[in-house]
Amino acid sequence: MEQEQTNTAKPIRCRAAVSRVAGQPLVMEEVEVAPPRDHEVRIKITCTSICHTDITFWRLEGMHPSIFGHEAVGGGAMLGQGVALDPATWGHRPHPVHPSSPLLPGTPSLRIRMVESVGEHVREVAVGDMVVPVFAAQCSECPDCLSTRSNLCSRFPNIPGSMPRDGTTRFSFASTGEPIRHFISVSSFVEYTVVDITHIVKLDASFPQEMACLLSCGVSTGVGAAWKVAEVEPGSSVAVFGLGAVGLAVAQGARMRKRMGITDFINPNDTDGKTVSEVIKELTGGSGADYCFECIGSTSVMAEAFKSSRMGWGKTILIGVVGNMATIGIPSYDILQGRSVMGSLFGGIKPKDDIPMLAQKYLDKELELEEFITHQMGFDEINRAFELLVQGKSLRCIIWMDDAKENGVK
Amino acid sequence: MEQEQTNTAKPIRCRAAVSRVAGQPLVMEEVEVAPPRDHEVRIKITCTSICHTDITFWRLEGMHPSIFGHEAVGGGAMLGQGVALDPATWGHRPHPVHPSSPLLPGTPSLRIRMVESVGEHVREVAVGDMVVPVFAAQCSECPDCLSTRSNLCSRFPNIPGSMPRDGTTRFSFASTGEPIRHFISVSSFVEYTVVDITHIVKLDASFPQEMACLLSCGVSTGVGAAWKVAEVEPGSSVAVFGLGAVGLAVAQGARMRKRMGITDFINPNDTDGKTVSEVIKELTGGSGADYCFECIGSTSVMAEAFKSSRMGWGKTILIGVVGNMATIGIPSYDILQGRSVMGSLFGGIKPKDDIPMLAQKYLDKELELEEFITHQMGFDEINRAFELLVQGKSLRCIIWMDDAKENGVK
Ligand SMILES: [Zn+2]
Ligand SMILES: [Zn+2]
Ligand SMILES: [Zn+2]
Ligand SMILES: [Zn+2]
Repeated sequence: MEQEQTNTAKPIRCRAAVSRVAGQPLVMEEVEVAPPRDHEVRIKITCTSICHTDITFWRLEGMHPSIFGHEAVGGGAMLGQGVALDPATWGHRPHPVHPSSPLLPGTPSLRIRMVESVGEHVREVAVGDMVVPVFAAQCSECPDCLSTRSNLCSRFPNIPGSMPRDGTTRFSFASTGEPIRHFISVSSFVEYTVVDITHIVKLDASFPQEMACLLSCGVSTGVGAAWKVAEVEPGSSVAVFGLGAVGLAVAQGARMRKRMGITDFINPNDTDGKTVSEVIKELTGGSGADYCFECIGSTSVMAEAFKSSRMGWGKTILIGVVGNMATIGIPSYDILQGRSVMGSLFGGIKPKDDIPMLAQKYLDKELELEEFITHQMGFDEINRAFELLVQGKSLRCIIWMDDAKENGVK
Repeated sequence: MEQEQTNTAKPIRCRAAVSRVAGQPLVMEEVEVAPPRDHEVRIKITCTSICHTDITFWRLEGMHPSIFGHEAVGGGAMLGQGVALDPATWGHRPHPVHPSSPLLPGTPSLRIRMVESVGEHVREVAVGDMVVPVFAAQCSECPDCLSTRSNLCSRFPNIPGSMPRDGTTRFSFASTGEPIRHFISVSSFVEYTVVDITHIVKLDASFPQEMACLLSCGVSTGVGAAWKVAEVEPGSSVAVFGLGAVGLAVAQGARMRKRMGITDFINPNDTDGKTVSEVIKELTGGSGADYCFECIGSTSVMAEAFKSSRMGWGKTILIGVVGNMATIGIPSYDILQGRSVMGSLFGGIKPKDDIPMLAQKYLDKELELEEFITHQMGFDEINRAFELLVQGKSLRCIIWMDDAKENGVK
């Protein structure tokens, strides 16, 4: 017989940047975050960043009101069942480490220390752990999780607007009680969020938080696509369509495999009337690129990437998420010439297995992360961070959840 | 300085089944076959068979007059430059070996013995060799031929209607001198044909000719697609769309890798209103097949094959040649779920490397070929062989070029 438990965790009232209307600025609101249920973890978000998928869904109708955000890190975890914590008793958030400063040996511990208790079904993390919530699940038990060939948990397929196990929400407006939608099992534009344990990756608490944040989606997607999905071979030609954070991360992943960097940039608006695929064919001696990565999520760019791929063995790797049910048109004659098209979510990364390994590669200086952080700001400025990304002026903007400004981060 | 040569080979007059009008019966005509030029081989066809690609191009406008046929074997080769042979002096065509009779040790040699001289640039085969002409080239020097990843020679891409090096034709009508088009570098519905040495594979003269004929296109394509392109893994689920010769050969190739046979047949006209992909998902516990092969050349079947493939790692392998520039529509959401689509010509087979190896697998009883031969007939009956294939009543019909009937083959 299972041990009886009383879930003594209480709802938390805190601030969230709520999306109320498609494409309109987020509104800072007081929300209530319910306690975690079985197999769930409540996390205090330390910092978050914005990914193009947030923008894509923010613009879609039928997704509101919603708390978006899925690149984040939590400085401490509040665990399902039996956890009774008042956020007022939480320790101070540690000073963020500025990307340009090396981690000094004397940096205060990033671990938030506090009394905690662990619920019946959550054993993988403990209160105070540093965790990365990830939109992709890893249950470690289903055929997909057990296979090395898939990174898409088939037991917990992603439910866009609610918790994965019971389809309910943990968010409501403090003023009215009206429920608020989750976003792809994460929802990080809020001070506290609730995440299923299958979507949680634990990292060592000494790991720099903003770098952990980067690893939770875009950068890992790009690195993984080059390294795990395409398995780029040394000496190959690689064309990356869309040089945002994901595209630059593809270049990093390719470099990890072949120790090469980017050699040519093509501005599609400056090609003397040639198509991008024509320019790529010229740059590759007429043949086309061995690997073409689409990191934008545009079906017309996907078609152009495919056209740029080499006869005989050219691989086109689709990473960019298209916000609707659009179809990619592939000329049958061209694909029969030995070409292939493959898609992946999250770059083939299995969250719990691969994110800690990428974190180690960062510490070993095999993976460069600093270059992705172009901006940092406080939670209040999140709409400005949205604008920067929409306008293509930022790669990743780290949004610190509370006293970032006081700590001199800008 | 290159040695000066006099090409003393003479034109040959012989019978061809010429396609004069798209989709209309072939017409038996007397044609003139010019001598082989540098790097070319003139072959006496022993037997040929019909592949769906012949049907596809036979129906297309703008391809006529043409000598189709690209699955064949030649009992002897006449080599470029310096060959002077009168076909009347050729030895008797050896008795064809009936597929049901084992090759007896006492079987007369299949080699046609005669005086021959070898031209300057053809060293790979000698007059009298048994050779298989193949629509795909292998020059063994270009980046594609040198790579294990491609089987599409980039030095000699296929030119549908003429010789690959100079774009001219070796065929003309004996009556008028009007030129006749070649077909994908082979043209085997004729007693003698001229083939570039890059399109020639030599087999041991003791190998059964009708089995060699099968290996020159369809069967090798299917076996190669499962074995070299998809790299089907043991224990995988494999769905084959289109159970003609190519589709059955896919099943053979999959079996070679995983020692399993076909377990279920789905008749698309008898699925209780379900789509084929729905039935396949039911048969695979809801998930879809690990490997889906399209062997028909229909873009709608290609889409259905893709739909039948498993999330996470499902591969759709396109083999069927589409006769026009049609586009395959792939839903972006589905491909991003870890699926991939790959196309290949000739099943990734490198002719000179892989056909002799498949021939050996036949001799070692690892590859079953007898089952593909459903009919045999004489050259005069070629239009009946076309009808049988069009109506789906035959897999492969072996067409013996001359005295097949006298030798009791039916
Ligand atoms: Zn993302
Ligand atoms: Zn799973
Ligand atoms: Zn064929
Ligand atoms: Zn070549």
